[in-house]
Amino acid sequence: MQQSIRADFTLPGEAGYEQLTLDLARRWGADVIRDSDGTHLSPEITSAGYRVYSTICIIRQHNEFASAHPDAQQQTFLSSDPVTAVSDTLTIHPLDGYFTEQFELNDSAEALPYWQVWDRTENTLLPRDAWSYQDGTVTISNCRPWHRYTVSFLCWRIWEEINMYNHTTNSWTSEHLRQLDPRHPLAWEYLKQWLERWCCENPETNVVRLTSLFYNFVWIFGSDVRRKSRFVDWASYDFTVSPAALHAFEAEYGYALTAEDFIHLGKLQATHRPPTRAKLDYMSFTQRFVAEKAKALVDIIHAHGKQAYVFYDDSWVGMEPYGKHFTSIGFDGLIKCVFSGFECRLCAGVDVPVHELRFHPYLFPVGLGGLPTFMDGGHSEKDAMDYWLHVRRALARKCVDRIGLGGYLHLTEGFPAFVDTITEISDQFRAIKALHTNGAPAVLPLTVGVLHVWGALRSWTLSGHFHETSNHVLIHVLEALSGLPVNVRFLSFDDVIGGGLQDVDVLLNAGQAGDAWSGGEVWQHPSLIAEITRFVYEGGHLIGIDEPSAVHGLDTCLALAHLFGVDLDNGEYACHIPFDVETVPAPFDIPESFGIRKTNVRLIQPDTDVWMAQGGIPQFTHHAFGKGHALYMSGFTYSPLNAHMFLQTLIHLTGISQTSTGTSDHPEIETAWFPADRTMIVMNDADHPICTEVTCPAGRASVELAPFELKFVTIC
Amino acid sequence: MQQSIRADFTLPGEAGYEQLTLDLARRWGADVIRDSDGTHLSPEITSAGYRVYSTICIIRQHNEFASAHPDAQQQTFLSSDPVTAVSDTLTIHPLDGYFTEQFELNDSAEALPYWQVWDRTENTLLPRDAWSYQDGTVTISNCRPWHRYTVSFLCWRIWEEINMYNHTTNSWTSEHLRQLDPRHPLAWEYLKQWLERWCCENPETNVVRLTSLFYNFVWIFGSDVRRKSRFVDWASYDFTVSPAALHAFEAEYGYALTAEDFIHLGKLQATHRPPTRAKLDYMSFTQRFVAEKAKALVDIIHAHGKQAYVFYDDSWVGMEPYGKHFTSIGFDGLIKCVFSGFECRLCAGVDVPVHELRFHPYLFPVGLGGLPTFMDGGHSEKDAMDYWLHVRRALARKCVDRIGLGGYLHLTEGFPAFVDTITEISDQFRAIKALHTNGAPAVLPLTVGVLHVWGALRSWTLSGHFHETSNHVLIHVLEALSGLPVNVRFLSFDDVIGGGLQDVDVLLNAGQAGDAWSGGEVWQHPSLIAEITRFVYEGGHLIGIDEPSAVHGLDTCLALAHLFGVDLDNGEYACHIPFDVETVPAPFDIPESFGIRKTNVRLIQPDTDVWMAQGGIPQFTHHAFGKGHALYMSGFTYSPLNAHMFLQTLIHLTGISQTSTGTSDHPEIETAWFPADRTMIVMNDADHPICTEVTCPAGRASVELAPFELKFVTIC
Repeated sequence: MQQSIRADFTLPGEAGYEQLTLDLARRWGADVIRDSDGTHLSPEITSAGYRVYSTICIIRQHNEFASAHPDAQQQTFLSSDPVTAVSDTLTIHPLDGYFTEQFELNDSAEALPYWQVWDRTENTLLPRDAWSYQDGTVTISNCRPWHRYTVSFLCWRIWEEINMYNHTTNSWTSEHLRQLDPRHPLAWEYLKQWLERWCCENPETNVVRLTSLFYNFVWIFGSDVRRKSRFVDWASYDFTVSPAALHAFEAEYGYALTAEDFIHLGKLQATHRPPTRAKLDYMSFTQRFVAEKAKALVDIIHAHGKQAYVFYDDSWVGMEPYGKHFTSIGFDGLIKCVFSGFECRLCAGVDVPVHELRFHPYLFPVGLGGLPTFMDGGHSEKDAMDYWLHVRRALARKCVDRIGLGGYLHLTEGFPAFVDTITEISDQFRAIKALHTNGAPAVLPLTVGVLHVWGALRSWTLSGHFHETSNHVLIHVLEALSGLPVNVRFLSFDDVIGGGLQDVDVLLNAGQAGDAWSGGEVWQHPSLIAEITRFVYEGGHLIGIDEPSAVHGLDTCLALAHLFGVDLDNGEYACHIPFDVETVPAPFDIPESFGIRKTNVRLIQPDTDVWMAQGGIPQFTHHAFGKGHALYMSGFTYSPLNAHMFLQTLIHLTGISQTSTGTSDHPEIETAWFPADRTMIVMNDADHPICTEVTCPAGRASVELAPFELKFVTIC
Repeated sequence: MQQSIRADFTLPGEAGYEQLTLDLARRWGADVIRDSDGTHLSPEITSAGYRVYSTICIIRQHNEFASAHPDAQQQTFLSSDPVTAVSDTLTIHPLDGYFTEQFELNDSAEALPYWQVWDRTENTLLPRDAWSYQDGTVTISNCRPWHRYTVSFLCWRIWEEINMYNHTTNSWTSEHLRQLDPRHPLAWEYLKQWLERWCCENPETNVVRLTSLFYNFVWIFGSDVRRKSRFVDWASYDFTVSPAALHAFEAEYGYALTAEDFIHLGKLQATHRPPTRAKLDYMSFTQRFVAEKAKALVDIIHAHGKQAYVFYDDSWVGMEPYGKHFTSIGFDGLIKCVFSGFECRLCAGVDVPVHELRFHPYLFPVGLGGLPTFMDGGHSEKDAMDYWLHVRRALARKCVDRIGLGGYLHLTEGFPAFVDTITEISDQFRAIKALHTNGAPAVLPLTVGVLHVWGALRSWTLSGHFHETSNHVLIHVLEALSGLPVNVRFLSFDDVIGGGLQDVDVLLNAGQAGDAWSGGEVWQHPSLIAEITRFVYEGGHLIGIDEPSAVHGLDTCLALAHLFGVDLDNGEYACHIPFDVETVPAPFDIPESFGIRKTNVRLIQPDTDVWMAQGGIPQFTHHAFGKGHALYMSGFTYSPLNAHMFLQTLIHLTGISQTSTGTSDHPEIETAWFPADRTMIVMNDADHPICTEVTCPAGRASVELAPFELKFVTIC
């Protein structure tokens, strides 16, 4: 292991703890000191010779302006919970069930025309004269008894969501911060002037760390203590809406959006579901707006000789680092908070000069789900190592430029093991980064195409962190892929139709029926099915997991069932007797825990190899079709062992040799071979010591690794 | 226990075993001796003073006629398995994958116009000139590469299915029996004359036991040894079809049926799935035809002074004992083979003079699934007792007139325990029947309405025996209800719309999304949802099990979710956080094994009581709505304990007292109270002895029961 050097590490400093700040900066090898939400840096820190990041949340530090211009606040559409009519008159209080410290009805003259009342029993929109509104109440006269009604309405968001989260999680008592909408002309002029002034007043700042831009991801709180948070979607656009945005959209696109384009049967349009055409248009529209406004802010920052880094979280919506407009903004760096390998690849893959990871745990008393972190009972050092194991293998494949932490530095005082762990992690990071400087690690000549509704726009992500999406099988696959020596591309269904399979060796579709990852109704397009059928017949390979290509209206549940040789039975096969299932040995080890999920898989082609079954139900199958092969897996759960199995799957399908990238003889030991340095990173992903042999094009070596240890093995 | 008397028992006699026949007739108290498929009665038996049933399968004993008139054989539509085109020409051999000893292409001039070729990738019908047929092969020119194609075709059924089953199961080697279609004019005249002659030649026969009428339930064999039986549906009509039937239908209904009305995306229209309008019309059409022809046969039998009983199985299709035309046929008796209580109620409820049950096991070497019965390793006495426990509790609620057995009597010789068990069962049966003669048992003032697509037409059944349908939750519920002291009605969705809820206290919907028992698309009718909402609000009660009222296109997965207070999440609730689940004590014991099935139930109304949860997922919930209540159960598995729980559920919902019907203090002891005799049937459903107290309006008594014992307790 190399010695700590002062580089590539961003330390959260804290006024009042100057000595601690400088001590830890030294121990962790920091070259940058930053402030955080709730802390600031004293002159003693900012003048200590470190570069300085200053955190700005551009839209939320302006309560005085917001009070003077309440119509400059941000908004959203919401739907009331359905109410059943038990007579021919019904009154609905739209905000019942919502957190009234977050929302306030917008019944202004420009907002009310966007309100709608729906009969949800027959799903029909009521004509405007069928209901009236007064003083916060909607009254429906002559409604149909026993039908259910909802009101869709615009409302102001009167508490910035991250501030609200910090208040409710950490018992903050300070004033609730409001947020401004940059679409409001006065607010926009005010924000630019504010930033200009801020830059003048903070000459010690080298990097403005924007946390982040304008519109928060969707986070809707409720009034019921049993469901404080009603809805969270890290990648949805509902919080960007306003009458001004709707008018501008209509002017540009030639058609008007309605409340139902957002409310969508009361479910909203979550990122995990296939979007409507209107939602896609609205997203494009918003992305252009956000990029244009963000560029104006970055220009101000640059004019002051500072750099602009953006934190890819919180109010990131519309920024889309893999979208068309991102590079036009001109950011100097992108900072991503990470728990997982896929997040590391997400950050590393963006076209921006500097990629930085902010590690977890955040220096807060409580962490995920309200569990203690830097409190009695917390195990911050274990958390840090656990996340690092996920991130490390991804960094071995594609590195970032910097790492760092955030939060209250003084909380580390009672946790010396945490301080040691971060020392170890930051040293490992710098050593990994150094290896990448002389050339990338060897990669198999094999490209996996991950196929879903969003395609490249949402490369390496679903919606938020692993723990928020762990019930979606694709995130487990992405986590596995993030550390494997293969090329990965993300394809939309339009990409496939447009010839996108030409550079793909293994096409992957993994999701639940009807979701954005499986694809939903898009599978009703015969040309899509035909193109993938051609692809496999001519020698491409296909992996389907869970409910891949599931759709209604065809003669099979899976549109690609004829390739997989298996289909799913949701009752449609009633009275049809399945083939007897006989397993044959798989060509590689399939761990029992690979991720079995299903009880309704059935063979439809008897020449399908069943590599694993449970209770007579196929769980892992292989089917040859033409020159290609199709694998079906009923599920997949990320673990180092299962990631190893996934790699074996890819190698078996394509028939290529793994020699060029280096291998280990033990499935829990991962390797990355850097030809330029003739050096191999050897990582023990297990919590027990392992002795094994590793092999690379340059030769073979014995390695002995402590639990979780990483070693660099140079073979000359 | 009463002594054996000679009554109400039908014994299968066997020529060559005359002494055995007469011995067992005495021991089991037989008053009737019958022949079976494969056995006959000698004069020594028929002249012994017993009434005689003679078994006739009217359509299958005429191979000579069938050979002379092959166009008089029965037919069906089949679909080829889909074949993927890999160039612009494709040939399909329609019968590939089917058992060619059962099927033969019907490419006659009248059949070919009904053939269809489908592009199943885009689900479009090919124009007739896009394909050609010659010598058993369909050729599609200019097809679309990578699309899948199927051929729908008519074929002859050249082996009567029950004979085919007996051959393949019991290694019979005799000539394959063919079957005639009574729609064929020559065949119909022949069959009538044949029956006339048969009646003349068999003066000793008292009862002609028709096994059964004309058209077998659908049973399609395949060519693959791993799937010998491809499709079995006990209640479908596919085997009634022919060009003659299709022409007659078109003439009567004014529209033509096509192959696709039967093939239905290759899935056929199984009874477990909601029927199309065309299928319902075709069923009505066929029912009238079958009733008309059956009446003609019964008239011949009656003219000879004999009675006509019909066996409700095998070629029963179109007879529909709960249909409109059944009584017009004039049968003197209905014989139902039974494993279960619901089958007993099915038989007992039909409007016919004599109801008879044919018990299992059938006297065959092998039984269900090829397991030994009357062979080494068989436990025929255990099988008999197991089935009897199911049937007994149903008979205690509603009795039949007779019981009996079938098969090869000599097989009993090595199984004295079986002979003893049947002696015991027949004595118990006669004692139960005797109690019913003085008046019915007390029933709670409570009517359960079982709601599904078929309504009363398919009272007390799904499609076949319990073991054939045990993955459908409703059969478990019917089995429980068959022995409970409540009134049961079967309602279709049209019945509900037409005011059918007025006499119902508890409405029940139990099934899988999209199936005939849950209902499928019918739940898109707002008037149906509104009517049930009204019913509950005004004091009716609702029980939903598994995926009740599940439908696409509404804002909830369950159309009645607002009543249940819970909904199912198939991905549509992505990003919506559920309410925290807190269980409250249920007002009665819920066995752990009641039938938990689901991982995707979520509360949508926080005022819903969760009586049982698993892994944080509600499994058994209660929700008040207006004056009524709605219960949701994620599953239900029949067992005596769970049947007891189901009764407690009904009593709790309706708030009525159980006193009037008698109760026991032990959940595994079931009772039936006969007020006229002041006698209670007390049944131990368990395999262990139980001492308990029983209570009825006349008082209370202690009872001690051996395993499976039945006692009659008279309280004066």
